[in-house]
Amino acid sequence: MNSSEVITEAIRQLSDYKQFKTLSHQQKEGTLLPSVDVLEEIVRLTRSILFPGYFGRSAIDRHTIKYHIGVSVEELYHLLTEQIMAGLCFSTDIEEPKAKAIDIATQFITHLPCIRERLATDVEATYIGDPASKSFGEVIFCYPAIRAISNYRIAHELLELGVPLIPRIITEMAHSETGIDIHPGATIGNGFTIDHGTGVVIGETAIIGNNVKLYQGVTLGAKSFPLDENGKPIKGILRHPILEDDVIIYSNSTILGRITIGKGAIIGGNIWVDQDVPPGARIVQSRPKK
Amino acid sequence: MNSSEVITEAIRQLSDYKQFKTLSHQQKEGTLLPSVDVLEEIVRLTRSILFPGYFGRSAIDRHTIKYHIGVSVEELYHLLTEQIMAGLCFSTDIEEPKAKAIDIATQFITHLPCIRERLATDVEATYIGDPASKSFGEVIFCYPAIRAISNYRIAHELLELGVPLIPRIITEMAHSETGIDIHPGATIGNGFTIDHGTGVVIGETAIIGNNVKLYQGVTLGAKSFPLDENGKPIKGILRHPILEDDVIIYSNSTILGRITIGKGAIIGGNIWVDQDVPPGARIVQSRPKK
Amino acid sequence: MNSSEVITEAIRQLSDYKQFKTLSHQQKEGTLLPSVDVLEEIVRLTRSILFPGYFGRSAIDRHTIKYHIGVSVEELYHLLTEQIMAGLCFSTDIEEPKAKAIDIATQFITHLPCIRERLATDVEATYIGDPASKSFGEVIFCYPAIRAISNYRIAHELLELGVPLIPRIITEMAHSETGIDIHPGATIGNGFTIDHGTGVVIGETAIIGNNVKLYQGVTLGAKSFPLDENGKPIKGILRHPILEDDVIIYSNSTILGRITIGKGAIIGGNIWVDQDVPPGARIVQSRPKK
Amino acid sequence: MNSSEVITEAIRQLSDYKQFKTLSHQQKEGTLLPSVDVLEEIVRLTRSILFPGYFGRSAIDRHTIKYHIGVSVEELYHLLTEQIMAGLCFSTDIEEPKAKAIDIATQFITHLPCIRERLATDVEATYIGDPASKSFGEVIFCYPAIRAISNYRIAHELLELGVPLIPRIITEMAHSETGIDIHPGATIGNGFTIDHGTGVVIGETAIIGNNVKLYQGVTLGAKSFPLDENGKPIKGILRHPILEDDVIIYSNSTILGRITIGKGAIIGGNIWVDQDVPPGARIVQSRPKK
Amino acid sequence: MNSSEVITEAIRQLSDYKQFKTLSHQQKEGTLLPSVDVLEEIVRLTRSILFPGYFGRSAIDRHTIKYHIGVSVEELYHLLTEQIMAGLCFSTDIEEPKAKAIDIATQFITHLPCIRERLATDVEATYIGDPASKSFGEVIFCYPAIRAISNYRIAHELLELGVPLIPRIITEMAHSETGIDIHPGATIGNGFTIDHGTGVVIGETAIIGNNVKLYQGVTLGAKSFPLDENGKPIKGILRHPILEDDVIIYSNSTILGRITIGKGAIIGGNIWVDQDVPPGARIVQSRPKK
Amino acid sequence: MNSSEVITEAIRQLSDYKQFKTLSHQQKEGTLLPSVDVLEEIVRLTRSILFPGYFGRSAIDRHTIKYHIGVSVEELYHLLTEQIMAGLCFSTDIEEPKAKAIDIATQFITHLPCIRERLATDVEATYIGDPASKSFGEVIFCYPAIRAISNYRIAHELLELGVPLIPRIITEMAHSETGIDIHPGATIGNGFTIDHGTGVVIGETAIIGNNVKLYQGVTLGAKSFPLDENGKPIKGILRHPILEDDVIIYSNSTILGRITIGKGAIIGGNIWVDQDVPPGARIVQSRPKK
Repeated sequence: MNSSEVITEAIRQLSDYKQFKTLSHQQKEGTLLPSVDVLEEIVRLTRSILFPGYFGRSAIDRHTIKYHIGVSVEELYHLLTEQIMAGLCFSTDIEEPKAKAIDIATQFITHLPCIRERLATDVEATYIGDPASKSFGEVIFCYPAIRAISNYRIAHELLELGVPLIPRIITEMAHSETGIDIHPGATIGNGFTIDHGTGVVIGETAIIGNNVKLYQGVTLGAKSFPLDENGKPIKGILRHPILEDDVIIYSNSTILGRITIGKGAIIGGNIWVDQDVPPGARIVQSRPKK
Repeated sequence: MNSSEVITEAIRQLSDYKQFKTLSHQQKEGTLLPSVDVLEEIVRLTRSILFPGYFGRSAIDRHTIKYHIGVSVEELYHLLTEQIMAGLCFSTDIEEPKAKAIDIATQFITHLPCIRERLATDVEATYIGDPASKSFGEVIFCYPAIRAISNYRIAHELLELGVPLIPRIITEMAHSETGIDIHPGATIGNGFTIDHGTGVVIGETAIIGNNVKLYQGVTLGAKSFPLDENGKPIKGILRHPILEDDVIIYSNSTILGRITIGKGAIIGGNIWVDQDVPPGARIVQSRPKK
Repeated sequence: MNSSEVITEAIRQLSDYKQFKTLSHQQKEGTLLPSVDVLEEIVRLTRSILFPGYFGRSAIDRHTIKYHIGVSVEELYHLLTEQIMAGLCFSTDIEEPKAKAIDIATQFITHLPCIRERLATDVEATYIGDPASKSFGEVIFCYPAIRAISNYRIAHELLELGVPLIPRIITEMAHSETGIDIHPGATIGNGFTIDHGTGVVIGETAIIGNNVKLYQGVTLGAKSFPLDENGKPIKGILRHPILEDDVIIYSNSTILGRITIGKGAIIGGNIWVDQDVPPGARIVQSRPKK
Repeated sequence: MNSSEVITEAIRQLSDYKQFKTLSHQQKEGTLLPSVDVLEEIVRLTRSILFPGYFGRSAIDRHTIKYHIGVSVEELYHLLTEQIMAGLCFSTDIEEPKAKAIDIATQFITHLPCIRERLATDVEATYIGDPASKSFGEVIFCYPAIRAISNYRIAHELLELGVPLIPRIITEMAHSETGIDIHPGATIGNGFTIDHGTGVVIGETAIIGNNVKLYQGVTLGAKSFPLDENGKPIKGILRHPILEDDVIIYSNSTILGRITIGKGAIIGGNIWVDQDVPPGARIVQSRPKK
Repeated sequence: MNSSEVITEAIRQLSDYKQFKTLSHQQKEGTLLPSVDVLEEIVRLTRSILFPGYFGRSAIDRHTIKYHIGVSVEELYHLLTEQIMAGLCFSTDIEEPKAKAIDIATQFITHLPCIRERLATDVEATYIGDPASKSFGEVIFCYPAIRAISNYRIAHELLELGVPLIPRIITEMAHSETGIDIHPGATIGNGFTIDHGTGVVIGETAIIGNNVKLYQGVTLGAKSFPLDENGKPIKGILRHPILEDDVIIYSNSTILGRITIGKGAIIGGNIWVDQDVPPGARIVQSRPKK
Repeated sequence: MNSSEVITEAIRQLSDYKQFKTLSHQQKEGTLLPSVDVLEEIVRLTRSILFPGYFGRSAIDRHTIKYHIGVSVEELYHLLTEQIMAGLCFSTDIEEPKAKAIDIATQFITHLPCIRERLATDVEATYIGDPASKSFGEVIFCYPAIRAISNYRIAHELLELGVPLIPRIITEMAHSETGIDIHPGATIGNGFTIDHGTGVVIGETAIIGNNVKLYQGVTLGAKSFPLDENGKPIKGILRHPILEDDVIIYSNSTILGRITIGKGAIIGGNIWVDQDVPPGARIVQSRPKK
């Protein structure tokens, strides 16, 4: 066979329905696939609404700011409706996806003032906790943790409102950009900070109190998961740690299973913790060998 | 000197051949440099062929899918030929780079059905192994590990076919996006999964069996490397671990040197292993100090 | 309220000055915000000047290279002036930001030959130290550590010249792309190499000698920081480690506080070090428990 | 008033519903406006289907051409459905615009082979009629008249199928590009050629036979139009000329009213004709005055 | 000389200041050149403000329209200030170009409601006068004459406010797109219509009353111009025709010199007029010769 | 048949080789089609070289202008070589297209200084001849005739050097933009000006002396062309007018056939001339009928 025939034969094999059926996807007629580009735009719009003057055109003017927020909110509403509908059609067989998408998008927008208030506590805690930070502005403008936490807070809200798939894509976008992997299902209190951040993993059922600080490489993971009768993991089990208020965990430590790290506890770096830690405790790695 | 003169003088110094010669590159006349943008498109095309309906236009229709796969394969063939030639000209003095590039691109395309079969096992293993995953679709569409493993399987195939440089660029693209660094020279079996993934490193001579699972931050690295008479590391030595079937390694552990982790062994998180581990063993970090 | 009224009400709340004032930014009239896209272009231009033939058009010709370097330097000068001014206006109340920006941009350009010389030592050390690397070309073209170190060396120079904010954005760009987080304030000698790199953190006051090598996941961090009378961390304290010449630190280890790792010391992986290590010492993790 | 207040006041006036209501448009909720960019893409796709190998990727291969045509036709079908729906919603109150749009798009596609056959006669006539043309290829690739006639034939087909607005936009696109203004309602036979073309106008009810040739600046216009009782022109009156087969009209002549130019007549340049011309006649301008 | 030397020599000649000096331009340091792309955006923004709902996002909503107009006006103000400054610096040696540009841009914006009112009369006249037009919407959305007249009315306003160069670029943009060349200095009343339009030329000092209609190819030009003592045309002489109210001029006629076409006169096609025409007259070409 | 089947059947018909073969093009393997986008870039580069400071970055600096011209010339050389090769492969069966393309591109570049000198005379004549023009800068920056003449002078040079197809595309680009259609084969002297320009046509074998001025709508065309034994026009016959020095032709006149308009003759508007006109003559249209 010459090159052209070889390729034609490969196309024939690759187009064989039997070979690709479990790996293919049939989106509901007339609906779009979720789009990472549009979701990036949604996050960008949301950030420009929440933090006026940091993203997009620089001039903030008391007379005109309301026009900008108005247009951004309307644009956000339209894009969000489209993507929520894309997510619903990707994952479910819902009857009236558009009506549901409109309803959810509207609710999401009414929650924006609350999201702004929560993020304000994160920004403040990050500024106070980092001797290298120079201003709120620097924190908002260029700290990767703020990007990751913003995406998480947006995604968590959407998940609570019943949107499938989209929340996960939004947190994965931040994961790719910052190396911080927060599952949208996690519950996280106010004043949350992550220093540096690369390698942080926060699992689906983790619960984090107020004023908690994590360093890079910290995992809040699952220890093991019970299997069902078919040998598959049972979905939805509570399997990640609970961190009470004021906990600090240093870099590269791994906290595993449905354990509780008590209020104010401090966990040193590079250790593996799979048992409860009492409030106020400090634990560190055993001494290295010289 | 005024500003204009200062800049002119800097240009003069920077244009001095002696100063830049070891840091400059002279691509063979008439050939392009490898292009990350084109390689991104190559990976995107390959994914749209392997997983119909997930990437690009959403509508999959039994009557028309073959047109889409046909056009994508032809486009892939052209872009791949161009980039393989770019890689050959970057790294070698080969006589007829175009003929060789065409030959390799043709072979690569005949291997696509096999790559699809292997990736299907990775997708299935990932879905089964993660209680948080909702469907095959979610895994294919947004799990970073599938992106990293896809790039690795494409890059490994190209490396086996004798392409220089390009395979490494393809795995580095996934490294940048996912934080997972798999050298294209590594050998990896079916049903391979990586959870979360940020910080995973898999070295050039590592060998991984079937149904192996790694967590974030795991290194399969080299312990040390013998130097040649000039004090430079000898290239090509087998220096990375062998993981037999069904091995699990938890987060942030470091496995170093040409050691063997036996079938079904489980390595806990945050530890450093530089000696063989027998089949079925379980090893964990020594208790932290409270 | 119907959907349109709900959204109008949300816009009203979000436009309330009281709610957003601490989270908003008022850039000085007539100046731009710093732009990640322009800074990416600045880094790309700088790399094309420092490493002729690797980036941009492939043909290097002794007769015409000076035109390319000339145009690139002039373009760099203009973009840099604009971004330095954006940084000055973001962070300070300086009177004549344009004059200062021109002055700094001019000085930066006179330092480019020195930056090239330093990066040459980093490239050489990386090539020699990695058995998997095939050529200087491969190192320059696709090693993420070279990207991170280039951005650091550019950013450090700008910081030394008194530019606010911009240096941090430049190193965060590399952080996002490579997972390597080097604070622009750190001091780093020649021949510096980072293998794989994801998760590496190098703090603001760290000092690194010549020919030092780090592996992925290594942290050079601060142990704790003294608080001022208001309970806020005192900024500017020397709080990160000093690494003397020829130190090697293996993957995922955490070095904390203003300690000194003596010349030639080797620190194994996955350990936490918070005390001085004498020259030539080797320290490793205590044995895992089987 | 300062500048900011002046602008705020202008915004208030411009947002006054009374001032803009007759100049504003309310597209049906959830539908797009017609898009010149998408219509450009539709024309481009149609041309790549009708003239394989001239537009888009150059390689035509007997084995693979069907994939390209298949993908292009499917893409055309989707974009056309969207734009037909946009046109229906812009101009009408139709109940089920999507169903009608799908029906029309499907019919349009079945007519593509006929459109190709007609355009083939236009290409051939143009090649034969112009001593400066070198090949069919040159005619198809760069003669503006072929662009204008292609757009007309596409637009005329859509108009016949009952699509509002879109046909006019398609011919206006060619008008802008070529200076040739053919109303989509005109009826034009085979083998039609226009030389140079700038300034040609062909009105809504004109009828043109086979093998007609026009030069630049020729108008086939209406002489006057009867008004209704309100003094407005009555729409739909037959008011433009009929050109029988083999007519030639030289540059800048104006043919006005529902007159007939008989078979084989030749009309010289720069004249104004508002009465029937018998078959085979030749008429020219009266001699200029020296 | 080999090819590289030949090119180097050509560069040397082309860089010779003596050869290029009269053909080169030195824009004032720190200011931009006028930009056709930005001016296109300015025209697009202005049209979206004047005709809400036709350009940009389709949804017009009484609650949110004011946000859109607000943001568009603010954006217009910024872009216009920049381009007016560019025009001032291109053509003059003005001391404080920014202050003047801000002043002019502010005035222009206060005139937008008047421009909208005038264009409304043009749209209405066009709709009424063309039996082929279906609605105001079709006229606004796709008639080239409306595009040309809009650009003229914007450009004329800027010229009146003292802006150099920019008005001419704006009318040339419409000239290129529609083939209608209206000098921004011309004076044109309400209810102005141009049918088809390609080839229309309206000179700098032409004066056009209300409800005038021109067809394609009509020239309102200058007959000859007196020379100054150096044999150069004296600039600024009144040299183009005056058209009183209700005049109609058919296609391709040329009206030359400072003559007056009286109220209600009708000029037939393809004729050359260089003397006054009394009110109510009708003149046509002498009969062609058969 | 349902919609999907109907479309599949249309694809089958459209993919039938017999139906499309005379309308399809098979570009030589491995070569690109000519690209209007690349040719636009070639014209833009050429203009930025010929008129420094008008196009691209504004700052002209005696020290750095040579870098910009150097880079632009080198870029022009590469793009031109590619497009000349594309033209050669589109139209001919030449053996070594690349070698010929390189040779032609090199020669073209050596002619750039001459092209600049000729265009300088056109700019000067345009400025002097138009009372509305304010400066050389305005003429170069925004007069459409200068764009059309520039494209013609570039295209004519390429045609003289033996390049097929590409010259015609370049003049058609200007035709589309300006409505001025100059065949690249025409011969045009120095100091050539076209006022307004829309509708001007200059045929393949026209010869124009120095200091000639044309107004909009002027045609220099062919009267009729002898047919060969097959009834096809004989290609290459001298069939367009000769205009001697200092001729002026007013708007919309048509000059037809291989006639000579003598030195200094003035032709009025809207007339048709198909016989020689002696030097110094003035001819105008016969009086219109009132």
